[in-house]
Amino acid sequence: MDNNSLNKHISGQFNLELEDVRSQVMAMGGLLEQQLKDALDAVQNGDKEQAKRVMASDRKINAMEVAIDEECTRIIAKRQPAASDLRLVLAISKTTADLERIGDACVRVARTVLETKNADRQGTLVSMDAMGRHASRMLNETLDAFARMDVDAAFRIHKEDIKVDKEFEAVMRQLMTFMMEDPRSIPSVLDVLWATRALERIGDRCQNICEYVIYFVKGKDVRHMDSDDLEDLLR
Amino acid sequence: MDNNSLNKHISGQFNLELEDVRSQVMAMGGLLEQQLKDALDAVQNGDKEQAKRVMASDRKINAMEVAIDEECTRIIAKRQPAASDLRLVLAISKTTADLERIGDACVRVARTVLETKNADRQGTLVSMDAMGRHASRMLNETLDAFARMDVDAAFRIHKEDIKVDKEFEAVMRQLMTFMMEDPRSIPSVLDVLWATRALERIGDRCQNICEYVIYFVKGKDVRHMDSDDLEDLLR
Repeated sequence: MDNNSLNKHISGQFNLELEDVRSQVMAMGGLLEQQLKDALDAVQNGDKEQAKRVMASDRKINAMEVAIDEECTRIIAKRQPAASDLRLVLAISKTTADLERIGDACVRVARTVLETKNADRQGTLVSMDAMGRHASRMLNETLDAFARMDVDAAFRIHKEDIKVDKEFEAVMRQLMTFMMEDPRSIPSVLDVLWATRALERIGDRCQNICEYVIYFVKGKDVRHMDSDDLEDLLR
Repeated sequence: MDNNSLNKHISGQFNLELEDVRSQVMAMGGLLEQQLKDALDAVQNGDKEQAKRVMASDRKINAMEVAIDEECTRIIAKRQPAASDLRLVLAISKTTADLERIGDACVRVARTVLETKNADRQGTLVSMDAMGRHASRMLNETLDAFARMDVDAAFRIHKEDIKVDKEFEAVMRQLMTFMMEDPRSIPSVLDVLWATRALERIGDRCQNICEYVIYFVKGKDVRHMDSDDLEDLLR
């Protein structure tokens, strides 16, 4: 075997490893979409058993985070990637950390089913439902952008997060009114408020993942960049 | 120059780079201790100007995160570190991300000075003060453990976080009572509640950093490990 074909072999093997770790991230993302859907369904139907299943499945998510991150470290140590290969591995490692936290948010949402009394829940469900659908769509689009490393989609979703933030502010005002009208509802409404806040944070996590996609494609760390500068970069 | 001395030279240069990036993390940590102290002082004294300074300084923290992470990537690409050197670089990169989020928590605390009316603030200050002192101490000890890569200290601080969580629950109950007794105070008290929650999250961030210290020293990713298994590992 001459050197050239050896290099090809090495690089082919390397590509397989990169593809494998990327598909692990997609599998983790798929599981999270299911977790979020199940958590929101459990809330909608007051289904305690489903809520408990969501909470139990979070272990799988945590294990996936550790496994993927370990694989990333192994690839860096063994393959010594540079340039865009290194950026891909680092982007994957960071994405996994944000996905794991989306898993925590799903658990937080599911927990309201166990902690909030049914009677108090009814009035506050509507607000949570809208936030939940928005967060689900954003997660779905973010995972798509990550799968295709689509920088334009990443940028579009990144801007979308402002809407989720505004939605959260509106929900918070609404929940405050509930509490002021009926102070006995305060503990239950606060619980819903934490869950809604967790949904809002899913938007922030998606925004982070979009930043890693942009980092991978453009080779530029865009965290904390204001949106005008970001738009200039992408033009 | 023979190969051996060249290797020594390279490795000496590499050590300098690692030391440099570590000291950048310590500088970032020092700035964060100051930010947290200033934010808590601003709350205590109702000092709007100081609160605004904390919010403005957060840009420095964000820039430090990006600069340190860029340096970590450069070291990986150029030096191709393995084993404990690689673990150190990865631990530094992750620590920086958590430090940046502690910076966001300081901003959240400072913002209460601008958003909460003085009259409403008085009753709730005591609770925030205790949480604030606890978070400050934990941050200080975490940065010490990181500076000395002290795995025993990291483990001790890691366990400490349960106390902060319990403290937060107590504060939350107290703030709920305030709201139920005087529903007009709800918006202000909620604002203090978010800030207290941010202080509680500082404890979680410190816990994460302790996990990276353990990862660097022990070569084992201990995220999501339960405390019995963790204790076994450290024995």
